[in-house]
Amino acid sequence: MRAAELAEPYPVVNAGTSALVAARLLADKRLPGLVVVDADGAPSAVLPASQVVRFIVPTYVQDEPSLAGVLDEQAADRIAERLSGSTVGQLMPDKPPALAVVHADDTVLELAAAMARLRSPVCAVVDGGRVVGAVTASHLLEFVCSKVG
Amino acid sequence: MRAAELAEPYPVVNAGTSALVAARLLADKRLPGLVVVDADGAPSAVLPASQVVRFIVPTYVQDEPSLAGVLDEQAADRIAERLSGSTVGQLMPDKPPALAVVHADDTVLELAAAMARLRSPVCAVVDGGRVVGAVTASHLLEFVCSKVG
Repeated sequence: MRAAELAEPYPVVNAGTSALVAARLLADKRLPGLVVVDADGAPSAVLPASQVVRFIVPTYVQDEPSLAGVLDEQAADRIAERLSGSTVGQLMPDKPPALAVVHADDTVLELAAAMARLRSPVCAVVDGGRVVGAVTASHLLEFVCSKVG
Repeated sequence: MRAAELAEPYPVVNAGTSALVAARLLADKRLPGLVVVDADGAPSAVLPASQVVRFIVPTYVQDEPSLAGVLDEQAADRIAERLSGSTVGQLMPDKPPALAVVHADDTVLELAAAMARLRSPVCAVVDGGRVVGAVTASHLLEFVCSKVG
């Protein structure tokens, strides 16, 4: 079985995408991370959902979570502001986690190997230099378990 | 809003759980990872879906994904065997990724802060030393986006 057969349509963002749009894409389908593409449309990194969570929590609260209780109620508005005023490029970590990428013609086992090697929660499937879909780790396990019977 | 109000029922496994059962739990709801509890039922680690993928891909294929094409068709049977003959304890990495944990009475912002600090894809919510549910990063973003309107 080829990677393209297992791949599903998957949201792709770039450095200029609104952070709020990215958050909504992750939220809507409860995805573990988004595929980030460069200016040429080639997949370049994964934006994990936990990184977006990092972005919306002020650093001093991350360092001292007990402070979170103090400012709880005003938080939602500020979070909305932070997200709508920012881009994916701004919320990417300095060293983005590696994204597994395979070609549409590669086998599902090659896809699994790429994902395993990079510990990537998602693997982009490309054809002609463009992302044609992706497979999350749990989607791959769904496929494997269906084979196990 | 309290963590317990946002938490959803979430599968919990321990070191003795069958690896195949763990794979199926991840697959069924497309979860980013499972909450692993110790012998006392206290949450101790997260088992990322990508770690289960690692386990089912032979090491030499991870190192050289092009080898995957060679052995594709026999793979499903072997994967089934590997999973059904193993436990969560066996497929946990030597240094398991940290699991965010908050108390049922903690606020959602405290939950976000714990998740952000540990870059955890899921946060367990405990009460009386037991896991009463969990929140994934994308579930948290769903909540945040619903507040943004």
